[in-house]
Amino acid sequence: MPGTAVADSARVAELIERIATISDDSPGVTRLAFTPAERKAHSLFAGLMSELGLRVWTDAAGNTMAEAAGAEELPAIGTGSHLDSVPRGGRFDGIAGVVAAVEVARIFTENQVRHRHPFRFVAFAAEEGARFGQACLGSRLAAGLTSPADLRRLKDAHGTTVAEAMKMVGLDPDRVAEARWDPADWAAFVELHVEQGGMLEATGLPIGVVDTVSGSTRMRIHLNGRPSHTGATPMAGRADALTTAARVVLAVESIATDARHHGTRATVGEMSVRPGSLTTIPGEVVLTVDVRDVDAVRQRHTAAEIVRYAETVGAERGVRVETTLIGDSSPVVLPLWVGDTLAKAAVDCSAGFRMMTSGASHDAQMINKVTPTGMIFVPSRAGVSHVPEEWTAPEDLAVGVQVLARSLLSLDALLSPEERSR
Amino acid sequence: MPGTAVADSARVAELIERIATISDDSPGVTRLAFTPAERKAHSLFAGLMSELGLRVWTDAAGNTMAEAAGAEELPAIGTGSHLDSVPRGGRFDGIAGVVAAVEVARIFTENQVRHRHPFRFVAFAAEEGARFGQACLGSRLAAGLTSPADLRRLKDAHGTTVAEAMKMVGLDPDRVAEARWDPADWAAFVELHVEQGGMLEATGLPIGVVDTVSGSTRMRIHLNGRPSHTGATPMAGRADALTTAARVVLAVESIATDARHHGTRATVGEMSVRPGSLTTIPGEVVLTVDVRDVDAVRQRHTAAEIVRYAETVGAERGVRVETTLIGDSSPVVLPLWVGDTLAKAAVDCSAGFRMMTSGASHDAQMINKVTPTGMIFVPSRAGVSHVPEEWTAPEDLAVGVQVLARSLLSLDALLSPEERSR
Repeated sequence: MPGTAVADSARVAELIERIATISDDSPGVTRLAFTPAERKAHSLFAGLMSELGLRVWTDAAGNTMAEAAGAEELPAIGTGSHLDSVPRGGRFDGIAGVVAAVEVARIFTENQVRHRHPFRFVAFAAEEGARFGQACLGSRLAAGLTSPADLRRLKDAHGTTVAEAMKMVGLDPDRVAEARWDPADWAAFVELHVEQGGMLEATGLPIGVVDTVSGSTRMRIHLNGRPSHTGATPMAGRADALTTAARVVLAVESIATDARHHGTRATVGEMSVRPGSLTTIPGEVVLTVDVRDVDAVRQRHTAAEIVRYAETVGAERGVRVETTLIGDSSPVVLPLWVGDTLAKAAVDCSAGFRMMTSGASHDAQMINKVTPTGMIFVPSRAGVSHVPEEWTAPEDLAVGVQVLARSLLSLDALLSPEERSR
Repeated sequence: MPGTAVADSARVAELIERIATISDDSPGVTRLAFTPAERKAHSLFAGLMSELGLRVWTDAAGNTMAEAAGAEELPAIGTGSHLDSVPRGGRFDGIAGVVAAVEVARIFTENQVRHRHPFRFVAFAAEEGARFGQACLGSRLAAGLTSPADLRRLKDAHGTTVAEAMKMVGLDPDRVAEARWDPADWAAFVELHVEQGGMLEATGLPIGVVDTVSGSTRMRIHLNGRPSHTGATPMAGRADALTTAARVVLAVESIATDARHHGTRATVGEMSVRPGSLTTIPGEVVLTVDVRDVDAVRQRHTAAEIVRYAETVGAERGVRVETTLIGDSSPVVLPLWVGDTLAKAAVDCSAGFRMMTSGASHDAQMINKVTPTGMIFVPSRAGVSHVPEEWTAPEDLAVGVQVLARSLLSLDALLSPEERSR
């Protein structure tokens, strides 16, 4: 990479800011999966890439791709992340990786950097599970892990299915099979993402190279008790859905913090209480549980243990418990040789780094089913994410862009059709 | 009372049904305090009483009254209850007492029953605390227990104050002092109400005579933790507002069920969790606590113990806790001689009865500040209330009407200006 081709932190910060203005709510960013706001961000990405002279298209899954042709007839090397957000989330989660892709594409184009493989810059659709429960829909469709039937089954809080939401923004859920990536067409993929935890900040390192991505099991638990008057109903004989739900919330926490589960994270993120009156004992509670682990067996055992506990405590207290599985992704160990390449790129860029696991799910773990994939983390201030306060310093992001660019060129140099089969 | 003057269970059932159709939501009845729906029910009551030839007026607090003149120049004997409901509540809570008043007025009018005192039939406004937190607003204003300043302070979930809500339905919150009842103008009051508990059903008795009405202390607790990503944030070091709130919910339950609190009822009826995303640790929880007791000291001690617990557990877990008092009414011991009169009326009507306490708050406990007051309970099926399934058999309600009519006539015969001072 030419010495002059450095990432411009001001330009990166400007684009982060520009995308953050596309939001359906405040504070923070609300740009949910398969909404007009998400599509608007994809259009912005497409426009920038077109201006750079790249060939741009959006597939049937809503993933937007831009290709810079390679010098040889070879499969593509890709990079990118997603443009959707959680409700009132931050401006970096996902977006950092897409902005990095834009900046890399710009550096390569403006400096006429030669590469043998075509380079593809990708904005995945619908990565956040916040709307439909299942995360990484765009990359799962690319990897053939989600079917058209799933799109008609998964619903948001308003009862809108993924398929219906896709149609509302002009996508055709019946054609998603066409969005599937052909492994023969891909050589490797690298996703840059904000860490969303506090490890890099704590250790003062600008780069994390991810070796393992956590899986997640997501469930919705319905608790149905017996509503009645808060004054006239004695404590004994109540079937209070909320006091039962509170036991489930605390069990989720205690199971995830016992000695056997060191490293498991389990969270109740949503809870609704009905009828929701000061003077009525809650008759109905609906809550969601998100279990994350780097150990696939422990992940499923933890989820099963939570369901068993909820059913037991519900039976003891006269509260009917029903559980629905709303999403399940296995943890993924990323290929060691890709991680080694990213680590070497960090060294080449004089950027301190560490190998680490990812607690969050990422498109990278889906894409790794199609082609060898690596992940670069950049620091998150105070380790917080999915909140308006989410922040990565533009200088840190620029270091990430530099390492990403170096990594893509290293992979381009390293990979031959024979080597890809390693 | 003439032998022919019996309560008509079919007519009573028909009026219950007619009022139940005035509702802003389903299932059940939603006729919140100071809404057009509540006013519509008051108009229906006023119309029926006018048809019977009674003098009808609505005071500045929104209480609707109908007077049947007495044969002598004496203060009034009253009966009545309220016409508002909780969200998705039942058709009997409050309404039963107003329908009983209509039926009694009809029996007395049609049979030209002579009474020395004027009889006043009352539909109180805004008894349910579900909308504004504070219960019994109409009767509290009549008793001078709520001020115009309170009306500007108390807000519903949308931020609308009581004063604003009153203006929206044509009432003048600045004139509520005029709605205050003069003790010299009243001789006694009797409220008929559904039990809302299971005691009468369990003992097979049609009538309860209330000796004590529980008080209630109501609080809103805000918990502010630190939202972040459910996957990337380790279990240690989280400041999860929901796991803290769950501890508060369980403490509310366990405090109310320990040996010292036998008879206390404490409930978390409302809880909202924000930002409310499957993949974000809850940063903010708002919940309400309703503490009921027949012991005024224990009621306030219990509320204080809950606040102390919430603050302690919040401090331990990095969650900021703020508590607001939103309503407070003391338990009331009703005058023994009024209860005795009601009990004797039940015997006269050959209706089995028992003395009992009321777990719920009632307008009666406010009106007892103005004039000696008694309460008659009729059975609640399965002991449930504040839910669409709330039910009292028309035959049971008719027995209640009969005992109420007998009670009013007994009080009319018993009371002289001298006796009122007992």
